[in-house]
Amino acid sequence: MLEVHHHPLCPFSRKLRIILNEKKIEFELFPEAFWLRRREFLKMNPSGETPVVVKTGNKILAGNYAINEYLEETADSLKLIFGSSEQRAEIRRVTEWFDIKFFNEVTRYILHEKIIKTLSRVGAPNSEAIRAAKQNILYHLDYIGYLCAEDRYLAGDQPSMADFAAAAQISVLDFVGDVPWSHNQKARDWYSLMKSRPSFKPILLDKVSHLNPPSHYQNPDF
Amino acid sequence: MLEVHHHPLCPFSRKLRIILNEKKIEFELFPEAFWLRRREFLKMNPSGETPVVVKTGNKILAGNYAINEYLEETADSLKLIFGSSEQRAEIRRVTEWFDIKFFNEVTRYILHEKIIKTLSRVGAPNSEAIRAAKQNILYHLDYIGYLCAEDRYLAGDQPSMADFAAAAQISVLDFVGDVPWSHNQKARDWYSLMKSRPSFKPILLDKVSHLNPPSHYQNPDF
Repeated sequence: MLEVHHHPLCPFSRKLRIILNEKKIEFELFPEAFWLRRREFLKMNPSGETPVVVKTGNKILAGNYAINEYLEETADSLKLIFGSSEQRAEIRRVTEWFDIKFFNEVTRYILHEKIIKTLSRVGAPNSEAIRAAKQNILYHLDYIGYLCAEDRYLAGDQPSMADFAAAAQISVLDFVGDVPWSHNQKARDWYSLMKSRPSFKPILLDKVSHLNPPSHYQNPDF
Repeated sequence: MLEVHHHPLCPFSRKLRIILNEKKIEFELFPEAFWLRRREFLKMNPSGETPVVVKTGNKILAGNYAINEYLEETADSLKLIFGSSEQRAEIRRVTEWFDIKFFNEVTRYILHEKIIKTLSRVGAPNSEAIRAAKQNILYHLDYIGYLCAEDRYLAGDQPSMADFAAAAQISVLDFVGDVPWSHNQKARDWYSLMKSRPSFKPILLDKVSHLNPPSHYQNPDF
C-alpha cells in the first residue's frame, strides 16, 4: 500500500488524498509537520515539502507535479486529465492556476500567517499579508464562477484535476474561515458540489489541534 | 506555424523556446512586456503570464505546465520526459524544483527588482530582495552540482525537461551577472554543456534595451 506523508492543512496533500480517493487507490497516512524540516523527511524530499509518496520497495515520489502525473500515467482507474489534446491542456492550465497562482497569492499567506504560526507557536500573524490574501481571493472566486458558468466544472462538464486542485486550496482557507462565500454564488455552488463527493469526506473530518473550523466547514449545503 | 508570445528575459519563455528548438518545431516570436498587463494579452491568457502559444486556427495554449505537457504528448519529435515511470517522475520532480522553487526563491526577485524595474523605469530595486536571491542561489547551485555528480545531467545521463527548466532560469540570472560561478564547479560544467547546445544559441543572442549582459554571457567556455 502507498504511504502518503502529508499535513492535514497542506493544500497539495489534500489534493493528493482526494485524487487517490477518486481513483480508488488505497493509502496510509503519515503526518508530517513540514515546516520543522525534520532530517529524515528532508532525506525523502530535499525540497522539504509535503506530500511525499513511498511505494512498495521504498521508491519515493515527491513533488505535486510529479506525483499527480505519475498517477495519471500508471493507474488504470479513473483519469482526471482527459479528452482531446486541447482539453487536456485546458485542464492543466487551470490546475496550474490554482496550484501556483492561487497558492502564491492566497493560500501561502494564510497557511504561513494563520496556520503554521499557530501550530508552531512562533510569532504573531502579519496582518498585512492576511489582508492581501483576503483581497486576492475575491477575483479568484470570480474566476471560478466564470469558469463554471459555461460548463459545470472548471475545465469541462465533469470534474477534472483542475477542480480537485482548486477545491483543495479552498478547503484549507475554509478551515480557518477565510472564504467570503457571499462574494460569488456560482463559486459557492461549485464548491458545494465538490464537497459532497465521497472522495472529499475524509478531508472534511480532519482534526488539527489548536484550530477549529467554522460550523459550516463540514456541511455541503452551507 | 506556432506563434510564441514571450519576453526575452522571462525564464518560462526561454525554457519553451529552447524546448521547441530541441524538438525542431518551428515558431515565430512576438514580444510581450507582460508586466504591462495589456488588455489584448490578458484576453489570450487571463493570468497575464508569458509564454502563450497560438496554434493555427487561433487555438491558444497558456501556462508553462500545460504547454510543455502538450508538446510532450503531441509532438512526434524528441521526448524530454522519458524512461520508466520512476524516471519520468524524477524528471518532473526536478523540473518542478526549478520552475517553482528556484523561481520563487531566486529568479522572481531578480526579475522583478533588477529587470522589470529597469525596463519599466518604475521604482528603485529593493536591495534586501536582491540580497535574499543572491543568498538563495548558492544552495541551488550546490543542488545542481549534487544532481550532476552521479549522472551527467540533472535527471539522468541525457538532457531532459529538468535540464532545460533549470538552464532557462539560470540564463536569466546570468544575463544580469547574478550567477556566482566560482561557487560550484560541477554546476558550472553542467551549464557550459547546456549553453553549447544549438537549441540554446538564439537565447544567448537576445538583445534587451537598457540591459547589457556581462562579457562571459555568450561564451560556452566561461
